[in-house]
Amino acid sequence: MRVLVPDLPEFHELQVEGVEFAFYRADHLPGGEADGLVLWLATASLRGELLNWPGLKWVLTLTAGIDHVAGKLPEDVTLYNAHRLHDRAVAVHTLAGMLAAARGLHRFRDQQREGRWQPTRDLGTLGGANVAIWGYGHIGQILEELLRPLGARVTGIRSRTPAAERDAALAAADWVVLLLPSTPETRGIVNADVLAHLKPGAWLSNQGRGNLIDTDALLAALDSGHLGGAVLDVTDPEPLPEGHPLWQQPNVVITPHIASTTRDLVRRGADYTRTFLTEMQAGREPEGRVAAGQRY
Amino acid sequence: MRVLVPDLPEFHELQVEGVEFAFYRADHLPGGEADGLVLWLATASLRGELLNWPGLKWVLTLTAGIDHVAGKLPEDVTLYNAHRLHDRAVAVHTLAGMLAAARGLHRFRDQQREGRWQPTRDLGTLGGANVAIWGYGHIGQILEELLRPLGARVTGIRSRTPAAERDAALAAADWVVLLLPSTPETRGIVNADVLAHLKPGAWLSNQGRGNLIDTDALLAALDSGHLGGAVLDVTDPEPLPEGHPLWQQPNVVITPHIASTTRDLVRRGADYTRTFLTEMQAGREPEGRVAAGQRY
Repeated sequence: MRVLVPDLPEFHELQVEGVEFAFYRADHLPGGEADGLVLWLATASLRGELLNWPGLKWVLTLTAGIDHVAGKLPEDVTLYNAHRLHDRAVAVHTLAGMLAAARGLHRFRDQQREGRWQPTRDLGTLGGANVAIWGYGHIGQILEELLRPLGARVTGIRSRTPAAERDAALAAADWVVLLLPSTPETRGIVNADVLAHLKPGAWLSNQGRGNLIDTDALLAALDSGHLGGAVLDVTDPEPLPEGHPLWQQPNVVITPHIASTTRDLVRRGADYTRTFLTEMQAGREPEGRVAAGQRY
Repeated sequence: MRVLVPDLPEFHELQVEGVEFAFYRADHLPGGEADGLVLWLATASLRGELLNWPGLKWVLTLTAGIDHVAGKLPEDVTLYNAHRLHDRAVAVHTLAGMLAAARGLHRFRDQQREGRWQPTRDLGTLGGANVAIWGYGHIGQILEELLRPLGARVTGIRSRTPAAERDAALAAADWVVLLLPSTPETRGIVNADVLAHLKPGAWLSNQGRGNLIDTDALLAALDSGHLGGAVLDVTDPEPLPEGHPLWQQPNVVITPHIASTTRDLVRRGADYTRTFLTEMQAGREPEGRVAAGQRY
C-alpha cells in the first residue's frame, strides 16, 4: 500500500509493514499513484491536488473538522477524521480561556504592558457559574469533566435538544461555549437575536468555527455592553485581518486557531498515523470513518 | 461585646445577638473601647492604631497570612486568621495562571494589541507536567484536585520534607508553585542557586509572598533563558513600581495581588465574620485560632 504523508521529520520516521510512504509538501509532490492520503497542514491549493490523486481509495484528515474536505472527494473514496487527536487539547484550551477571562488576566496583561499595578475586585472563579456547551460531543464531555471540580454547572446542548430547552439553557448561562461544527444549519447560528436573549454580562467562548457567530452582531452586543466578553479561537473572517474592530475590543480574547495545537502535535499526529495504518494493515477498520452524508 | 469592623455596606448589614458593631475607616475611627477587631483592607498606619485599641481581647484578620499582624499584638490578645475564606480562590487563580501560560495566552494578548494573527506550535496542556507545590497546605491540596483531571503530576513540598527529596522534586518540576508563607526562614528561599537547579525551561508561579523570591536572581534566570517564565501575583517590591524591569519581561505574567479576590469577596468576608461571631457568642471556639509562636 502506498500512502501520501506530509514531508515532516516525524513522518519520515514512520515504519509500518507493507506500507510505502511518499512525502508531499507545497513545493514538491511525489510521482505515481497512491492508495491513501494522510492530509494535514496543507494549503487549499495543495489540498486540491492531493484530494484528486490517481488511485486514491481513502483519506485520513488529521483534523477534527471535515468541512475542508467534504464534498471535494470522489464518492468511492473513504474519509476518516481524527477527533481523538484534538479533543483533549481543545477542551483544555477552552478551560484556559474561560479561567483566564474570569480572573481578568487579559486586563492585567494590558496593565502590565503599561507598567500599572491596579487591583480590581471584579473577578470570578467559575464556581457556581452556569456553562452552556453548545455542541456537546467528545470535547464538551472532556470540558465538563474539567469544569466540575471548579464548581461550574454544565448544560450540554445537542442538535436534538428541544428548542425550548436550548433557549432556557442559553438564557441562564454565564458562559456559552460553542463547539459546534460548521454546517449549513450552524452558520451564523449565534445571531443578534440569540445574543439579545443571553443574560446581561454573559461571556461567549468559540472553539468551533468562526462562522458560527455573526461577527457584526457580536460587535454590536459587545459595544452595547450586553455581552460581557468573548474568548475566540476562531473568527469570521479568519485569519482576522489587521485593523479589524474585534482586535481592539477590550473584553475580547483572541487566539489564532490554536486550540488543538500542542508542541508535540506533529509527533502525536505521526503516532496517530502509525496506529491508523497498523489497524488497516491488520484488516481492522480504523477509528474515525466518516459516514456518507455526514458533515462533521 | 463590642467589635470593630470595616466601614463597608456589607458589614453594616451584620446582626449578631449580643454584639455591638463599631465601624472604622482610614479617615474615621469610632470612640470607646472594643473587645474584638475584625481587621481587613486597612493601610499600615490604620492597622497600627487598630491593633493597639483599648480593651482588645481578640483580633480576626480576614486574610490568610498573618505576617502583617504577628509580633504587633500584645501577648494576651488572641489572633485568628481566615484561611478558608481565601483558599479556593487562590487555588483557582493559580490554576488559571498556569493554564494561561501553557496555552500562550499572554503572548497572544500581546499580538492582539498589535492586530497580529500569528499561530505558534509551542503550546502545552499541563498533561504529564511535573508540578512541585512548595508550601503544601490547604491551598495546595485544592490546587492538586484541580490539576489532577488535567493529567499533571503533583509533588507537595512541606517544611518537614527532607532536603534531598525537596531538591529532587524541584529538579524534576516543569512548574514550581510557591504557596509558602513569609517567615524569616522563607525570605529569599528561591535564590540564584535554587533557580540554577531547576529544569531548563521550567516555570515559576508565586501566590505566596513576594519576598520568597530573590527578584534580581529571578531577572537573571529569565534573561539567561534558563527559566521558562513566571506567573507572579506577588512581587518584591510590592506594589511593583513603574519602570521596574519585571514589567517588561515577555514571559512574566503579573497580577496585582488579587489571587484571593472575587467580586463577592466583601460579601463573603462579612458572612465569615457573622459565622465567627455567632460561634464565639455561643461559647464555641471559632475556626482559625493562631497558636502562640505560630508565624503563619
